[in-house]
Amino acid sequence: MTTFRYLTAGESHGPGLTVIVEGIPAGLELTEEYIEKQMARRQKGYGSGGRMKIEKDRADIRSGVRHGITLGSPIALWIENLDFANWTEAMSIAPVGEEVDKKVHTKVVPGHADFPGALKYVQHDLRNVLERASARETAARVAAASLARRLLEEFGISIHSRTVATGAEEGRTIAIEDVDWDVVEASDVRASDPDADARFKAAIDRAKEDRTTVGGVFEVVAFGAPVGLGSHVQWDRKLDARLARAMMSINAVKGVEIGTGFANTRRPGREVQDVIVPDPSDPRRFRQTSNHAGGIEGGMSNGQPIITNVAIKPIATMTKPLPSVDINTGEVVEAAYNRSDICQVARACPIGEAMMALVLVEAMLEKFGGDSLGEMSRNYTGYIESHQEFGRG
Amino acid sequence: MTTFRYLTAGESHGPGLTVIVEGIPAGLELTEEYIEKQMARRQKGYGSGGRMKIEKDRADIRSGVRHGITLGSPIALWIENLDFANWTEAMSIAPVGEEVDKKVHTKVVPGHADFPGALKYVQHDLRNVLERASARETAARVAAASLARRLLEEFGISIHSRTVATGAEEGRTIAIEDVDWDVVEASDVRASDPDADARFKAAIDRAKEDRTTVGGVFEVVAFGAPVGLGSHVQWDRKLDARLARAMMSINAVKGVEIGTGFANTRRPGREVQDVIVPDPSDPRRFRQTSNHAGGIEGGMSNGQPIITNVAIKPIATMTKPLPSVDINTGEVVEAAYNRSDICQVARACPIGEAMMALVLVEAMLEKFGGDSLGEMSRNYTGYIESHQEFGRG
Amino acid sequence: MTTFRYLTAGESHGPGLTVIVEGIPAGLELTEEYIEKQMARRQKGYGSGGRMKIEKDRADIRSGVRHGITLGSPIALWIENLDFANWTEAMSIAPVGEEVDKKVHTKVVPGHADFPGALKYVQHDLRNVLERASARETAARVAAASLARRLLEEFGISIHSRTVATGAEEGRTIAIEDVDWDVVEASDVRASDPDADARFKAAIDRAKEDRTTVGGVFEVVAFGAPVGLGSHVQWDRKLDARLARAMMSINAVKGVEIGTGFANTRRPGREVQDVIVPDPSDPRRFRQTSNHAGGIEGGMSNGQPIITNVAIKPIATMTKPLPSVDINTGEVVEAAYNRSDICQVARACPIGEAMMALVLVEAMLEKFGGDSLGEMSRNYTGYIESHQEFGRG
Amino acid sequence: MTTFRYLTAGESHGPGLTVIVEGIPAGLELTEEYIEKQMARRQKGYGSGGRMKIEKDRADIRSGVRHGITLGSPIALWIENLDFANWTEAMSIAPVGEEVDKKVHTKVVPGHADFPGALKYVQHDLRNVLERASARETAARVAAASLARRLLEEFGISIHSRTVATGAEEGRTIAIEDVDWDVVEASDVRASDPDADARFKAAIDRAKEDRTTVGGVFEVVAFGAPVGLGSHVQWDRKLDARLARAMMSINAVKGVEIGTGFANTRRPGREVQDVIVPDPSDPRRFRQTSNHAGGIEGGMSNGQPIITNVAIKPIATMTKPLPSVDINTGEVVEAAYNRSDICQVARACPIGEAMMALVLVEAMLEKFGGDSLGEMSRNYTGYIESHQEFGRG
Repeated sequence: MTTFRYLTAGESHGPGLTVIVEGIPAGLELTEEYIEKQMARRQKGYGSGGRMKIEKDRADIRSGVRHGITLGSPIALWIENLDFANWTEAMSIAPVGEEVDKKVHTKVVPGHADFPGALKYVQHDLRNVLERASARETAARVAAASLARRLLEEFGISIHSRTVATGAEEGRTIAIEDVDWDVVEASDVRASDPDADARFKAAIDRAKEDRTTVGGVFEVVAFGAPVGLGSHVQWDRKLDARLARAMMSINAVKGVEIGTGFANTRRPGREVQDVIVPDPSDPRRFRQTSNHAGGIEGGMSNGQPIITNVAIKPIATMTKPLPSVDINTGEVVEAAYNRSDICQVARACPIGEAMMALVLVEAMLEKFGGDSLGEMSRNYTGYIESHQEFGRG
Repeated sequence: MTTFRYLTAGESHGPGLTVIVEGIPAGLELTEEYIEKQMARRQKGYGSGGRMKIEKDRADIRSGVRHGITLGSPIALWIENLDFANWTEAMSIAPVGEEVDKKVHTKVVPGHADFPGALKYVQHDLRNVLERASARETAARVAAASLARRLLEEFGISIHSRTVATGAEEGRTIAIEDVDWDVVEASDVRASDPDADARFKAAIDRAKEDRTTVGGVFEVVAFGAPVGLGSHVQWDRKLDARLARAMMSINAVKGVEIGTGFANTRRPGREVQDVIVPDPSDPRRFRQTSNHAGGIEGGMSNGQPIITNVAIKPIATMTKPLPSVDINTGEVVEAAYNRSDICQVARACPIGEAMMALVLVEAMLEKFGGDSLGEMSRNYTGYIESHQEFGRG
Repeated sequence: MTTFRYLTAGESHGPGLTVIVEGIPAGLELTEEYIEKQMARRQKGYGSGGRMKIEKDRADIRSGVRHGITLGSPIALWIENLDFANWTEAMSIAPVGEEVDKKVHTKVVPGHADFPGALKYVQHDLRNVLERASARETAARVAAASLARRLLEEFGISIHSRTVATGAEEGRTIAIEDVDWDVVEASDVRASDPDADARFKAAIDRAKEDRTTVGGVFEVVAFGAPVGLGSHVQWDRKLDARLARAMMSINAVKGVEIGTGFANTRRPGREVQDVIVPDPSDPRRFRQTSNHAGGIEGGMSNGQPIITNVAIKPIATMTKPLPSVDINTGEVVEAAYNRSDICQVARACPIGEAMMALVLVEAMLEKFGGDSLGEMSRNYTGYIESHQEFGRG
Repeated sequence: MTTFRYLTAGESHGPGLTVIVEGIPAGLELTEEYIEKQMARRQKGYGSGGRMKIEKDRADIRSGVRHGITLGSPIALWIENLDFANWTEAMSIAPVGEEVDKKVHTKVVPGHADFPGALKYVQHDLRNVLERASARETAARVAAASLARRLLEEFGISIHSRTVATGAEEGRTIAIEDVDWDVVEASDVRASDPDADARFKAAIDRAKEDRTTVGGVFEVVAFGAPVGLGSHVQWDRKLDARLARAMMSINAVKGVEIGTGFANTRRPGREVQDVIVPDPSDPRRFRQTSNHAGGIEGGMSNGQPIITNVAIKPIATMTKPLPSVDINTGEVVEAAYNRSDICQVARACPIGEAMMALVLVEAMLEKFGGDSLGEMSRNYTGYIESHQEFGRG
């Protein structure tokens, strides 16, 4: 059966978000502070609106950890929605009286889940769809992924992300292996150089002035993954397929590339494949001279950085709303407006990192097994060391 | 548990491919001829090499169908590899003597599964990886998906595909809803207009002359899917995420877009969302005036055509091979060359259709249940009809 | 993918238990009171020890419900461990100082999870295993199953349970269809008649006097399930297989029967099969004249009550402990003693009901689909009504 | 995702059975002869009818193996139904003319899948259900499990089975660890001593004379499984739960015990738990002095033999048929009679072994990971050796 699984639950303005993660081995150091730090990275971003200022997210660990060490049992996390204080009646779990303002919402926002969700789940109050479809849910994924990230660290795997385009502005002048990640973390548009930082902010400012929104592209990279995660043997075991699913599941994402992706299609074959050469200094003995493949060949990691580019569309709600309809009456209205963010690219970056971490941990656990960190590490080390003998027979 | 599942098996030059598909309801008409016709669509393509001429694929139904009607039990398909006649010893299931030519293959092809696969599975003969990593496996998926497609037809869902770029040549002048699909089927580059047809072929010819290969982009569309397939409630239930996984799992695919994907990121928010307007003539009562979302909002189908664009890189093996290494000795060699295809975009199109069909059938079965076609249809009709009352309360 | 899934988390003396249940349709009425009532049924029982008196369990709904109605989104439940107040340091999530009494536990209890768990997860404090292996976890399952039970009620499916043996005392004089379930609920050994009630209590009293423990057999029945849940088409879809897994997963359970189970093996074939006769008054047109099959033939429900008998062994911890070993030093010790329950059969009954409910809901959702209660009901009704026409062509 | 999965397909009188098994590591020696030998064990048995004489099953390996060694890719097996020659029209995959004898079957057999299956799948020819519900399918499982068994052998795990009761005759005088398995293999009722052999045969003879059928109980045991397979952390990971599902999925099985199962419930707690004592000669350092737990505590293997007892009911079809109904007309008829077996207990034994093997391999792969036999073995050895240091710190 499945080695690693997790579920999230929670509405955007409900009491809070709940997460259960199963499959993290016993013996891993883990603290709430570690998780909180990761969650904070999701909460900053130039062009973000008011809510981010309200809520400083933190996750309470409710199980699976004792005295700072994982037990191997499921880890439950609880992320309280501080904003719920303002929604106790509108989002009450229990029935409320007729007189209560339920903050019913019936004006369809084009580009949101509300139209298909209303028909699928037979909801006449769109809030019943939007509360779960909201990107608030990604806070739970980032929390879950903190556990994954913590485990990957033990294997020398680190995950980073940067914005590479905001609207029409592109900014990928620095090669991924040369990025100073402190610069990225310090940039509130997650640009990897000052020029891109300025241009990205200008694009956001223009959109704000225009009372519209702006999307972009971000890049997520994992350094240090071993050769051989994922598999070619069945379509759904392929690491690139699993990464694509994970990235496309992020709210508002509409495109995913592994490595150079679409650009590959415009170049001749000889320039797209990554030539492999001997590398006596490397225990794995070979290295590639480029990384167009984004670290994945045949559905398996090949020892290079694993790179994905993710396209995120502009936010659907705008201060100057689009024309729309009322879901119940059918009359023409202005779309609802409920949030003031202009651009979510920088904030989506840590979510992309989260999905990368979750995919890699699942693949690591499949390959290396292990119920304790010690066992998993022993298995990992045995595998890596075996590569030194490969072909020496 | 899972409503719909399937597995494929088989090596490229082994005895053949095996498929089991579980979850197709009872009562569906299905013939081997229907499957064969779909498989034939995968076998033609300008710039395809020799093997396509050798093999005219057909699938034998081995179970799950009686007198031309599905039984509800698992459907097994057997696709014989006609070429196996030339490989009985090299690909023998049973042990063979030392004197036999095992067609051992040790020269790494950059961009293929062989390097990571060799290390992961500890294989010193790269053939042991490549035989399964080969795109031959997609014949099994197309066969499996024929069953899905047959079922979708009963619900008025049709799936098409076309090439929209070959190398640097783009060709998407005709809007997807205006495409004459007979034109596409007649084009051996799967272009939707004669101009694109000519330019795509020229790009392939140039690559051939250059002794290299060329990739491209193809578009897969499903017409007629109801509102509400997939779900926003958990990341892995989202229809776009599942489509992305399915498309990215196709050999050599490195990028996937839903709707206008990456282009969305370069345009202001107001131009990207699909405005919704009343439509009295439609039982669902509303329609969108554009389809940048590619038919999916909030991880659910919204009643519009479901559209995905898929980037496929140039083929890794070239008549003028890249420099590479021998996996066992480490010495520098020329990469192996084992196939003469120049461009696989047109041939990948039906594979993309196959993955679309498989994803949609899974989502249909989740939503509508049903163990017989009659039951599934009754459930489907009840749902569609209920939309007429939506909001009439 | 999976239609219905749930995970539980939480240690016995940790902060509390967390549950996420995904797949309950939208539109179902659900309150915390309903769940609490089910949880209370798990907490009484003749021969139960001290903890039951401490904790009156209740589950907070944290998501997936608004104004008393399910949303279709995942439902999170939080069950606080009131006893945690006494364990804040010993079970602290965060690291604690060396001076703290960690209530380390190293004496193996024969029959518990601690020995294999210690080796599997490399734990030198057996508490790190026992806290999760404890039957406390079943409170989370009962809570999860309350949602399932609530949904089944809408389809006229009710689930009951009774004790049929305690130690060597058997008590199944009343046929299952004639049981007065109020009598069972009123009996704190869950006996269905006063004679059995007295004998079961006497058996428990004797065990107590003897400073040992006593097990027994309980029977779980579901009335009203439609024909056709589960399937014969693949081993893991069979309803009886799924029930067996569910029941055997209950702590201390070592045997499961469907219908008359082991007794079937001692009787001639002609007495074991359930003869089917015409029944004009029934829309399903037929009825069986007996129910040795326990309502399941060929892995599918057959319209009769679904019956399972479950054997639960005596509790492993006893006031007069067994000889054992210290897991770390290897020295011979007395097994730890940490709980004063003598008999858990009656308390296990509602857990058996919970597992029955979870299995049936999963099978119902697979067969009928449906994202809202209305849709699921429409599909269900269509199916049931179709049986009236069966064979009338 | 799932580490190990398999599907079977095929109707009883159709062209044959198809199996795909995914997850067997690369590098394992495997031949068709090995599989054939296992399949032959399923085909003998005192009281078996005619078909067994017709068919000597063999499985063709169609993929996943090259030169006698597994590749790590999915292994497809094809088991031809030799009897299909007599059913080419009645079980034709393609439509047939009206004049053909379709061997339509409408008389319900009490105790079979046909009644619920007909209503679930809307089938008026019961053959459309029975062909898949037939125990013929278990040939596919035995074939699949041969691969699992082959892998387990590499880890010193062996699986055996014997009949312990036939009708009212019990025969378990020899303790499981003292059984001479050659004696069992030589007995065509799979008895472990001559006295039981004679009594089991007499019970079968009596049933035959009586024109009825007889069931029984068989015991399956796995020797050599390491401590720590399965897990206590979530209900569905428990090894006993998984074994119960696997055993209950065997056709006609209605009861499953782990270890002494139901008998445990009649004895005081102190006699049921398995006392653990120091064992300096064992690397695992401890041993239990009894095995009532059947080798599983807390849902995990504890290093002792894993034992399950399985109750199988008498065969449903009898030479003197039961009264029944015609599924289409509703009239009272005699049940169909289509097979002359009197007792299937001995034949079910190897199927029980098969399910044990499949469950254990899945649990082994989850714990040890590994894509090649070498890697899996290295991980396994590291784990076993680590137990020697346990508690020595």
